[in-house]
Amino acid sequence: MIEDKSLLPIFALQIQLLMKAEILCIGDELLIGQVINTNATEIAKQLEEIGIEVRRIVSAGDRKEIIQAELANALAEVDVVIITGGLGPTHDDVTKIAVAEFFGRGLAWDEEAFQNCKRIFERRGVRMPESNRTQGEVIEGCIVVQNSQGTAPGMILKDFDGYEGRIVILMPGVPYEMDAMMKKSIVPFLAPLSDTFVKHSVIMTAGIGESHLAELIGNEQEFLTPNSTLAYLPHTMGVRLRITTRGTSQQSVIEENERIVKTIASRVPKFIFAQDDVLLEEVVGKMLLERNMILATAESCTGGQIANRITNISGSSAYFSQSYVVYNNEAKIRTLGVKSETLEAFGAVSEEVALEMLEGCLNESGADIAVATTGIAGPTGGTETKPVGMVCIAAGTSEKFGRIRRTKTFIFSQDRLRNKELFTQAALNSVRIVLMELD
Amino acid sequence: MIEDKSLLPIFALQIQLLMKAEILCIGDELLIGQVINTNATEIAKQLEEIGIEVRRIVSAGDRKEIIQAELANALAEVDVVIITGGLGPTHDDVTKIAVAEFFGRGLAWDEEAFQNCKRIFERRGVRMPESNRTQGEVIEGCIVVQNSQGTAPGMILKDFDGYEGRIVILMPGVPYEMDAMMKKSIVPFLAPLSDTFVKHSVIMTAGIGESHLAELIGNEQEFLTPNSTLAYLPHTMGVRLRITTRGTSQQSVIEENERIVKTIASRVPKFIFAQDDVLLEEVVGKMLLERNMILATAESCTGGQIANRITNISGSSAYFSQSYVVYNNEAKIRTLGVKSETLEAFGAVSEEVALEMLEGCLNESGADIAVATTGIAGPTGGTETKPVGMVCIAAGTSEKFGRIRRTKTFIFSQDRLRNKELFTQAALNSVRIVLMELD
Repeated sequence: MIEDKSLLPIFALQIQLLMKAEILCIGDELLIGQVINTNATEIAKQLEEIGIEVRRIVSAGDRKEIIQAELANALAEVDVVIITGGLGPTHDDVTKIAVAEFFGRGLAWDEEAFQNCKRIFERRGVRMPESNRTQGEVIEGCIVVQNSQGTAPGMILKDFDGYEGRIVILMPGVPYEMDAMMKKSIVPFLAPLSDTFVKHSVIMTAGIGESHLAELIGNEQEFLTPNSTLAYLPHTMGVRLRITTRGTSQQSVIEENERIVKTIASRVPKFIFAQDDVLLEEVVGKMLLERNMILATAESCTGGQIANRITNISGSSAYFSQSYVVYNNEAKIRTLGVKSETLEAFGAVSEEVALEMLEGCLNESGADIAVATTGIAGPTGGTETKPVGMVCIAAGTSEKFGRIRRTKTFIFSQDRLRNKELFTQAALNSVRIVLMELD
Repeated sequence: MIEDKSLLPIFALQIQLLMKAEILCIGDELLIGQVINTNATEIAKQLEEIGIEVRRIVSAGDRKEIIQAELANALAEVDVVIITGGLGPTHDDVTKIAVAEFFGRGLAWDEEAFQNCKRIFERRGVRMPESNRTQGEVIEGCIVVQNSQGTAPGMILKDFDGYEGRIVILMPGVPYEMDAMMKKSIVPFLAPLSDTFVKHSVIMTAGIGESHLAELIGNEQEFLTPNSTLAYLPHTMGVRLRITTRGTSQQSVIEENERIVKTIASRVPKFIFAQDDVLLEEVVGKMLLERNMILATAESCTGGQIANRITNISGSSAYFSQSYVVYNNEAKIRTLGVKSETLEAFGAVSEEVALEMLEGCLNESGADIAVATTGIAGPTGGTETKPVGMVCIAAGTSEKFGRIRRTKTFIFSQDRLRNKELFTQAALNSVRIVLMELD
């Protein structure tokens, strides 16, 4: 492995401030794609929050030699190695013995860990299998971390011979056991050792792509300092901007982070729907609630997905009454009173039809605000003038709220499921824009 | 790094058969726990299926030196290195240049990749930002893999100087772009290079839990051989059984796999809805199409999710007309004619109300078959007698199809989103069961 400090002079200042960690996840199930590695993400998030920098995450197989090689690799680079998985009582759980051998240590008996294991079986009313006796064995000289959720104890190995200044932590791989142990014991152990304060802020945008956003925000060197970074994180729902500031003084870190957030926000005000890690349906829900308005939707190409996302939010019945999913022309005519002449003259995918769907939806439901979608999700059904990925959206309000009418046509990608997601996001954003007009 | 073959005599036979791979995921967002690494899982699963063994999965930061060190590390151990992430047009995307430098190569222009990028912006009706010109640049001497979903091309580097017999693959980090590229181009490229033949079969079940299924299937040692494995993969949609057989002879692998599938299928016939990796909405869609019937849905607690899943299938307009998402009581009364007396007497979550929703749905839509849901997704709104997770489902047919009426009440879990998924799955399964009654 390459020693990083010599290779990364630019980052040297920043790196010297930080404790560095590696996360090593043991388990063949990770390597055959059977299990998504949520443990690594959870651990990384918690380390990040206490100012410990994760340099690398490795998933490796349940074999002693592999674990030992990865551990050697990690200890050459970082201060803290966190290992999860392979602490169970079965023959393929070899992490404990692999790490003990690596440090030339034996196993010691920990009565409390054994009693904890016994108690768990007693509580379940199940006889403890003999193999579980090994759960009382820990690595000689470790700090034992009791497992409140399961049978395998965690272990902290600190300043072992030849590895002074290094910490190796073993945790079980079962996500809820690991998670409880991390929060209850490992974070409180590590936090005082870190001398870095980290502040993350998030700005959520919608209705603009990554590169256009970057153009509007402009040269980041103008407002970023060496302690701060700006990341563009695009996903189906829009682009998330993450501003991270690190330092040793909490106050100056917070001040600097806020200054950067304000600068960015001032450059792209109309694309920001939240300065927080929230979903657009939550933002729209809150706006409806504040204005005491009821939403209904009329959906063709989104097929109920707008309603589904809105009702994913607990409490949505306070501001959402209903959706008319009108997938074929007959349903549009029958249920929402769309005129067959309009369908013939402009086609089902047109702003004219979207407007009539909106009209029908507001009339039938008695809602205060509504949005209607009609489009071509694909992969078939596209034409020269109306390609796959095209959606017409109409959003508007009832008489009581000023009878606003807004329509817009978008063209998105080739993929059916992704189109439905993008159509839905655009429709929710249209509702947000109309709600802002009301203010 | 330790050379594995000498250390692992037990596995030597198996390993010699297998091509080995490492997955290297680039992105600071993985290291700070902001994004779960689903890419690695998806790639690992697909490699597994073509008989390529993943030795290690590494997540590392967006820095040239780090990427180069990890690549050197991986190439010392495996035949194939798959790198994802860091191929975008912004300054923090350094993967392409890092890998080019590693191999001492420059960048070459690929007009097709550039045109693809331009087309994507044109279709969106958006001007291409200047920074995106770099998407036309690829590593000299690579096989360019066009990106059907986004702007960054993939690259295959094969037998580069000093690394004969090695393959390095670069793919974008955006999951749906990576996924499409993996399936369309990378798997077809790698599969013929692997000399292990792997056959996976899938049996899809619904309406039975994992442990009961295992009881019915019985002792797997009776029908499995050392070349085969049986995995129970429970998920929201039911339990998926995966039967995997490996070997060097294609014919014997296929025969053995088929024998095992038949044995299992004969033990749990009535819980199987497909012997293929299909979704319940596809199965239901095919059944409707075969019977030339039109479906409509009436959804309260599922909030449009049934309609959304049905319309996820291309061609669903041939058998699905519409959905009435009636989220509050007024909508149920207004749109579907549910009687307020019924709501008062039995409560909104009752089989009586579900039946009236079904009745209204069939009448209003003129559909041949319909399903109605009313329940408590939670986390609030539960009572002693009607807990969170309870759903009442009514399914039935029009006069023309015998006026079938079936109702059922289920109680699922505590989590709102998971409940909505389980309610939706149960509703789709109810449609399937009614359709089977018609035969």
